[in-house]
Amino acid sequence: MPALPEATVKRLPIYLRSLVDAREENHATIASDELAARAGVNAAQVRKDLSYLGSYGTRGVGYDTEVLRQHLNRQLGLNQEYRVALVGVGNLGQALVNYRGFSQRGFNVVAAFDSDPAKVGRHYGGALVHSMGDLATVVSDEAITMALIATPAAVAQDAVDRVVGAGVSSVLNFAPAVLNVPPHVCLRQVDLAVELQVLSYYEHLRAIGPEAKV
Amino acid sequence: MPALPEATVKRLPIYLRSLVDAREENHATIASDELAARAGVNAAQVRKDLSYLGSYGTRGVGYDTEVLRQHLNRQLGLNQEYRVALVGVGNLGQALVNYRGFSQRGFNVVAAFDSDPAKVGRHYGGALVHSMGDLATVVSDEAITMALIATPAAVAQDAVDRVVGAGVSSVLNFAPAVLNVPPHVCLRQVDLAVELQVLSYYEHLRAIGPEAKV
Repeated sequence: MPALPEATVKRLPIYLRSLVDAREENHATIASDELAARAGVNAAQVRKDLSYLGSYGTRGVGYDTEVLRQHLNRQLGLNQEYRVALVGVGNLGQALVNYRGFSQRGFNVVAAFDSDPAKVGRHYGGALVHSMGDLATVVSDEAITMALIATPAAVAQDAVDRVVGAGVSSVLNFAPAVLNVPPHVCLRQVDLAVELQVLSYYEHLRAIGPEAKV
Repeated sequence: MPALPEATVKRLPIYLRSLVDAREENHATIASDELAARAGVNAAQVRKDLSYLGSYGTRGVGYDTEVLRQHLNRQLGLNQEYRVALVGVGNLGQALVNYRGFSQRGFNVVAAFDSDPAKVGRHYGGALVHSMGDLATVVSDEAITMALIATPAAVAQDAVDRVVGAGVSSVLNFAPAVLNVPPHVCLRQVDLAVELQVLSYYEHLRAIGPEAKV
């Protein structure tokens, strides 16, 4: 299977969510323009993205909702469970460990780590908090392959070095810091303020010029 | 000012963060390849993005760190404060209201709303929680222009309808639901699980084929 364009990969989870919704509303089939409207993109984009996966709708009928949902699930590697570690159990970490959107999609936070001795030994959202010193042992014992970094920015690189050293191959970083990982590790960055700054740009653009297009 | 490509707009906050870091490390100037390395993109991309803003580095010297930082700040509309409402004070909402990355960048959560009477009247991260029934009055009185939606998915459309009805023009949605807003409203979607599903795709790709490129 050749790698898909990254922009397509980022849209697949959104199509998947739209298909789950459509199925819950008992739509056995879904047209590309209906799927597009639900996903907030245009219909040509939907058809192009899905054609990369070898999925072509039937003219006048659209896609079989359940067949396409299962296909996307497989393509995204979601027909399995992932064992995830959380590093940093502050406000954001606690929100993440309780976020149902993760476990619903097969991402199970099975262990948490924090440098605060007051948190070690407690459970958050079903995950036991361990000390940072136990990270390598717990990651290995629990067969953890993914990690969420939710530490303060200043210690995020140290946190990612530890999880990578322990064998984790996929890292999702929520700390506002650009992190370095070896080439074999997949790293994705989430900065909660980036989208607010994008909104700010469009607010500003709207405020300063009538010729400005949003 | 013409509108920038959206992909460029999304990179500007990352350049800005890199410039703030560089300035704190006392770098008076920064070369495009250094800025690129900090931002996790390539140098040609940096030069192209910044040329849209009319910012050209000096050959052999690079960009003036502080001048470029101020320029990006203005371009992103960050040289002002934004008054923000939070709707939904569950785990994620509580993390958001306490997230320092927002207030550091001028996004001040000045009011929160929740349908749970036990939360109304309490403060979270400095924001007083109001009932949903008081939303229109509080948004107007507090001159709020932006909203963060952190409700359960099932009530997110109702929440966004209320804030838009109250006059909010920019909405950042954290609920896992595709929302509809009128054309004059800017809506951005954050789904915390999307990035995990992107990681899952690459994990899966790596597992299934040696010819697969990450």
